[in-house]
Amino acid sequence: MYIHFDSWQEKYKKPFGAIKVDRPVEFMLEAYDVDVTSVELYVYADGKLIPEIVGMENKSSGRYYATYIPRKSGLYFYYFKLVIRQHEHELVRYYCANGGGQGQLIENSEVLENNSYQLTCYDKTVNAPEWYQKGICYQIFPDRFYNGNLDGYIEGKKRDTFIYATIQDDPMYIRNHDGSIARWDFYGGNLKGIIKKIPYLKKLGISIIYLNPIFEAASNHRYDTSDYFKIDPMLGNEKVFKELLTKLHKAGIHLILDGVFSHVGRNSKYFNFNGNYGKHAGAARDKNSEYYPWFSFERYPDKYRCWWGNADLPVVDKNNPQFQQFIYGEKNSVLAKWNQLGVDGWRLDVADELPDPFIAKIRKNLDGYRERLLLGEVWEDASNKVAYSQRRHYVKGDELDGVMNYPLREAILDLLAQKRSAETIAKEMMKLRENYPLDFYLNSLNNIGTHDTKRVLTALGGDVNKVKRAFELLFMFPGVPCIYYGDEVGLSGGTDPDNRRFYPWGREDHGLLEHVRSLTAKRQAEPALIKGELTLLAGEGFFGVGRYQAGRKVVYLLNASEKPNEFYADKLQQFHDEWNLRAMMTKANGKEFGPFESIMLTSDNC
Amino acid sequence: MYIHFDSWQEKYKKPFGAIKVDRPVEFMLEAYDVDVTSVELYVYADGKLIPEIVGMENKSSGRYYATYIPRKSGLYFYYFKLVIRQHEHELVRYYCANGGGQGQLIENSEVLENNSYQLTCYDKTVNAPEWYQKGICYQIFPDRFYNGNLDGYIEGKKRDTFIYATIQDDPMYIRNHDGSIARWDFYGGNLKGIIKKIPYLKKLGISIIYLNPIFEAASNHRYDTSDYFKIDPMLGNEKVFKELLTKLHKAGIHLILDGVFSHVGRNSKYFNFNGNYGKHAGAARDKNSEYYPWFSFERYPDKYRCWWGNADLPVVDKNNPQFQQFIYGEKNSVLAKWNQLGVDGWRLDVADELPDPFIAKIRKNLDGYRERLLLGEVWEDASNKVAYSQRRHYVKGDELDGVMNYPLREAILDLLAQKRSAETIAKEMMKLRENYPLDFYLNSLNNIGTHDTKRVLTALGGDVNKVKRAFELLFMFPGVPCIYYGDEVGLSGGTDPDNRRFYPWGREDHGLLEHVRSLTAKRQAEPALIKGELTLLAGEGFFGVGRYQAGRKVVYLLNASEKPNEFYADKLQQFHDEWNLRAMMTKANGKEFGPFESIMLTSDNC
Repeated sequence: MYIHFDSWQEKYKKPFGAIKVDRPVEFMLEAYDVDVTSVELYVYADGKLIPEIVGMENKSSGRYYATYIPRKSGLYFYYFKLVIRQHEHELVRYYCANGGGQGQLIENSEVLENNSYQLTCYDKTVNAPEWYQKGICYQIFPDRFYNGNLDGYIEGKKRDTFIYATIQDDPMYIRNHDGSIARWDFYGGNLKGIIKKIPYLKKLGISIIYLNPIFEAASNHRYDTSDYFKIDPMLGNEKVFKELLTKLHKAGIHLILDGVFSHVGRNSKYFNFNGNYGKHAGAARDKNSEYYPWFSFERYPDKYRCWWGNADLPVVDKNNPQFQQFIYGEKNSVLAKWNQLGVDGWRLDVADELPDPFIAKIRKNLDGYRERLLLGEVWEDASNKVAYSQRRHYVKGDELDGVMNYPLREAILDLLAQKRSAETIAKEMMKLRENYPLDFYLNSLNNIGTHDTKRVLTALGGDVNKVKRAFELLFMFPGVPCIYYGDEVGLSGGTDPDNRRFYPWGREDHGLLEHVRSLTAKRQAEPALIKGELTLLAGEGFFGVGRYQAGRKVVYLLNASEKPNEFYADKLQQFHDEWNLRAMMTKANGKEFGPFESIMLTSDNC
Repeated sequence: MYIHFDSWQEKYKKPFGAIKVDRPVEFMLEAYDVDVTSVELYVYADGKLIPEIVGMENKSSGRYYATYIPRKSGLYFYYFKLVIRQHEHELVRYYCANGGGQGQLIENSEVLENNSYQLTCYDKTVNAPEWYQKGICYQIFPDRFYNGNLDGYIEGKKRDTFIYATIQDDPMYIRNHDGSIARWDFYGGNLKGIIKKIPYLKKLGISIIYLNPIFEAASNHRYDTSDYFKIDPMLGNEKVFKELLTKLHKAGIHLILDGVFSHVGRNSKYFNFNGNYGKHAGAARDKNSEYYPWFSFERYPDKYRCWWGNADLPVVDKNNPQFQQFIYGEKNSVLAKWNQLGVDGWRLDVADELPDPFIAKIRKNLDGYRERLLLGEVWEDASNKVAYSQRRHYVKGDELDGVMNYPLREAILDLLAQKRSAETIAKEMMKLRENYPLDFYLNSLNNIGTHDTKRVLTALGGDVNKVKRAFELLFMFPGVPCIYYGDEVGLSGGTDPDNRRFYPWGREDHGLLEHVRSLTAKRQAEPALIKGELTLLAGEGFFGVGRYQAGRKVVYLLNASEKPNEFYADKLQQFHDEWNLRAMMTKANGKEFGPFESIMLTSDNC
């Protein structure tokens, strides 16, 4: 008995991956050496209890065909129901997903809920700017990158905060007994500092900067916005910001800002708990304040909805029309102001906290400007994310252009730490590729570390060799590689606040830096690394990534084990190799790879 | 029955107060309307169980006389034993002290131990420099006074410390969960800052600066010396220090340093726990280190004798000859180095922790230089201080010139807060006068607040009016008034660290400042305020201080109550008024004083 389907091969499902609404999907299931009575395709539109049942036609010996046309955007889940005759009995069997493209035959229909194949159906293709998809991004936590003033002078210091004595100091939280922050801590990085380091970024190959928040705020991370219309005085002012934009653009670097619209700062202009903005102003001090309706008070003024119980971050009602106008209104809104100045895109903080229509309206606002990018902070597979019991529609085409790719980070780290098998990781990554609309996928902001994770060097046990492999994988996968400032020179650090050390000027790991530079140069030179389709290959301690575009090929091969490993192409399990990249790999046949040794082959050098 | 003695009146005891060794003391006890069989003077040399008994001679009706000559320096305690005949019975009664000069008659000899009169007997008169006794002192906590660099630039910042963002910030400790210091906090005051503020100090009338520690250390208070031979790099360097000395001297200001010789810093050159001074150097890292014998290890290297359980401060063995040489040896010692540069005096930190011979040797070292002053940090009556079960000999004449006068501070604050009666306070202050040798007493460094106490403004509930009275009292009492930086302009603050705020440049209370300036001017103009003898008068909510010298008189009168109070001189209880100051006060007879209103009369303006 041979029953087979593989959603990753066009022979069985065409086209591969997500599909636009109203486009037909062709399915084929093979069943040999078995007496089949009927095969049916069961398709559940997301949230529906009743499936559509499509009978599959046996067109040639053992091959059952069906076509399905999704008529509404959203998710669909499918599996196959087979009735089989065996020893005069009719048995019901289900062919369903099993972590990869190939599935499994099961008896018990109860497990189907978690084992259906996903079909993502989107409304329209996202249209991210060209500079983005081909770009190389650099994430800067602005307090921690560089101070552009002479002698370490820090401007705009806030009362009752602390400044680290040296940029070599390790960051720490200064807390009260109850765990709340007693004083915020700053190093004094600023916008002038970024301006001064443009040559460094250019040499590194950077073409995009993603800046953590820069609007006035109390904390050093500035996710507690005090004033959306003002650059934080420690970072500079609007004049310096304009200079930064001008000089970045002149250098061919685009700027993405962090849009923090789910909550504001407790001591913001809007909430104004401590009276910084006037004794009788703001929601917490005046029930007649224009900002009062933005917030939900359980007990006025000191008990209110806040972000994950953090009283520093009162949550804003995103359904409040006045707040909506304030954020994305055509005129005088937060977005209008900064977009008019020439900001190239936004990364939406905690996108899961923003209602779909809110994000869609932000999208609309940006569409009014030239080439504005909208990314979202989503930590999981964004296609099927459920937040607050609601399925999110990030990928439909009218919301985000793409999301931060944390699943990739986890995959890369797990692979290099041998936490999961190369096969499991390859399957998971290909599934992400399958679930996302292609352009949404290509718009992924890939990372191996951010301000919210351990530093890659620390996550990899301080092994710089593995960090080099991590960067290689970051650059091999589709999406836009984003380098968290300092990772390229071996900055280490555990979780927050340790992951926010100051860039180690003068103490850089130049070997690592050169390696990262070689990768940015490769990406700049090789179109297949940008738009090329993806193939993953994995087996016997090896992990392979193939990219293919219009005849151009890049193949990357890694010994993902602690032991020397002889490579033979035919021992690799094949996932999605339409372009015969495996053949290209035979060039490496018999080669011995040391532990975590890698090789990158392009069609040029093959 | 009238039995009377008063150690504060020369009629009864002559001379008043402490006496030099081998000088006779004449006692007289009055007993009228009583049948006396015998009167004896019982004198116990300090620590002795057997008294000397001196029979008292009835020279004229009811007056009993005796002369006692102390033959060794030290303390003596005395009382009188009377045998009285009453109704055919012979009764034994004791006349002993009762808090003031006048005593009480008691039956029970058991209570005598705590009620004997004290007679202080010293070896020689201390010979403090003239500039000191007539001086006006200003105490500076160097990190908190003024930063002499442009733009608030801070030099010599130490790794893993914090700098306050603004000098307006409130100080705080940054602690670990276990209460230990996580990072030290600095504002960046420095020696250049003091140099720049010499004109301010001159205008204030200052002629002495007492500087909290300035040698290299880890903390902001610098009582954890790292290197006795080096100015802390945050404060400056030896060149700047020399410049400071030169410019102070040119301005007629003398400099007293803080000598911290009881303990060193855990991470000092000498102990070197963390290896700052080399991997294999210092007592905690090398048992062969020249510094190893200085310390007492219970378990090497992490359990050791330290100051009051504070592991940051390993205690040094002051009996170690090498350490003694190191501190006060004639050549290459700590004292030699700084004295040669021209330092004018030292304040010995925690004098109670330094053995008497150690202090005496420091005294000897200083005697080798011109006019060097030696003060001690002693919080109580230094004449009878017992520390570690040992009577201390601070006042004998071969150790300290004087001590910090904390009892005066407590008296002034209690008087203004009405915590104790004016009478009780007057008695206590006169007792101090009695117990100290005169010059030792005149060398008291008087304060109403230091780096170890609440700020005077805070201690007085924020009442600036009372602070003015506190300053008046500070200037009225014998001894050298010492102003804790910022107190003169209304800086507030509770206990450590709150009492170490930065000087409030630009936010000074100019009314208070002018008031303090008027007091420094008075002291400069009035010799009686410097060397004048002391009389205290108290009664009915009034507190009076009289000073008298060679016909010059100053009288100060305070309504020490919250109610308006009419003054009548004859209602004041008299303590020690040889110079008929009370008569001078009759000038104020009938005058109504508002709550805490005061008046200062000099013989000129009477």
